[in-house]
Amino acid sequence: MAKEAIVLLSGGIDSTTTLAIARAEGYDVFALSFDYGQRHRVELERAREIAKAFGAVRHLLIQVNLHEIGGSALTDRAVAVPKDRSEGELASGIPVTYVPARNTIFLAFALAWAEVLEVEEIFFGANVIDYSGYPDCRPEYLRAFEEMARLATRAGVEGRMRFRIRAPLLRMTKAEIIRRGRALGVDYRLTWSCYDPVERSGEILACGRCDSCQLRRRGFAEAGLEDPIRYAS
Amino acid sequence: MAKEAIVLLSGGIDSTTTLAIARAEGYDVFALSFDYGQRHRVELERAREIAKAFGAVRHLLIQVNLHEIGGSALTDRAVAVPKDRSEGELASGIPVTYVPARNTIFLAFALAWAEVLEVEEIFFGANVIDYSGYPDCRPEYLRAFEEMARLATRAGVEGRMRFRIRAPLLRMTKAEIIRRGRALGVDYRLTWSCYDPVERSGEILACGRCDSCQLRRRGFAEAGLEDPIRYAS
Repeated sequence: MAKEAIVLLSGGIDSTTTLAIARAEGYDVFALSFDYGQRHRVELERAREIAKAFGAVRHLLIQVNLHEIGGSALTDRAVAVPKDRSEGELASGIPVTYVPARNTIFLAFALAWAEVLEVEEIFFGANVIDYSGYPDCRPEYLRAFEEMARLATRAGVEGRMRFRIRAPLLRMTKAEIIRRGRALGVDYRLTWSCYDPVERSGEILACGRCDSCQLRRRGFAEAGLEDPIRYAS
Repeated sequence: MAKEAIVLLSGGIDSTTTLAIARAEGYDVFALSFDYGQRHRVELERAREIAKAFGAVRHLLIQVNLHEIGGSALTDRAVAVPKDRSEGELASGIPVTYVPARNTIFLAFALAWAEVLEVEEIFFGANVIDYSGYPDCRPEYLRAFEEMARLATRAGVEGRMRFRIRAPLLRMTKAEIIRRGRALGVDYRLTWSCYDPVERSGEILACGRCDSCQLRRRGFAEAGLEDPIRYAS
């Protein structure tokens, strides 16, 4: 029987590379994306193209109105996306782009779909190196989620299935992730990272200055590769 | 400072009684309901009336398209809602009305809102007596969720907040729940339980035969009280 996995796909570098890794390991992939009112909705179009490029069996887009809950620069227009932060600032604390319980919500949907599809593996591009500030990317969180998932589900309680969160990028730097993805044939032109896109002459460009753009640019620089996308500044 | 709590409110007997208990304990309440494509959407109108009747500070309705995930009689029209099951059948196993990971998804949203509002208590009408078949109503599940929640959130990791799932109905029978609610002034005419509503002469009626209707009717009978709603049969 074919190996099957769910992959959380935001359309960024990490989730796209995670998808490439799952495919390279021989998994048939069910890609799952979320429209949560993020400023950077262009990533959803990219996610669709990426799922197609990698031959996902299915790509499911779930609408969740996190903006009504608020509390993050990514979903709340009243909170500004930070720009031009120094390397020290990037590395310290939890940024305002943290979305409360976002990964828990996303993984909960993935768990529901996993139980329905009878798929045990959920691939998730969590990373503790570049975004050490996000609590819901750390390995102890992922283990706690797995334990909760076992008790939450019919298949888990009955012992028929054991849900696992696979986070192959967990301890890789952005440069290592990019090199790995390139080796697996990822076209990073398709990926979207910017939190605060800029429209210029009808074209949507990455701002080049938010945390995510900065980490991306530094990652490509450290990998010694050219970033194929265009920036507004 | 006022005590504040989030209450998961479906509009049924259990969540409504839970709301009444939270109010009686002196909490200012933020009510949270979900439109998840359930057959019994009438419960959402009831939830709104109930939140208003109990003076909730706010009532937030979140849209989540669980029907695209499927896998349950409550969200998938291809799966029939069971009718006229015997007491033995009701007590055994996990019914097809189980919605995979539904409570995990709901609690994840509650957790997100709790972190934004800076509220530690989440009231949830989970019960292990009447619905012993649902894995995500059991105390071990609730404890695992709390542990995961601690690791998932900025406030939890920083030690500023400790999220607790309060399940005051956990070990009560339906009759005990109804008596408790009556004592707290709940008007059960407002509540909706039926999984498979019937339309008759423009009026929406409870079917009277699904598991939820049967448990409700038996609860009122055992409590020695009259059920104020009308049934189709």
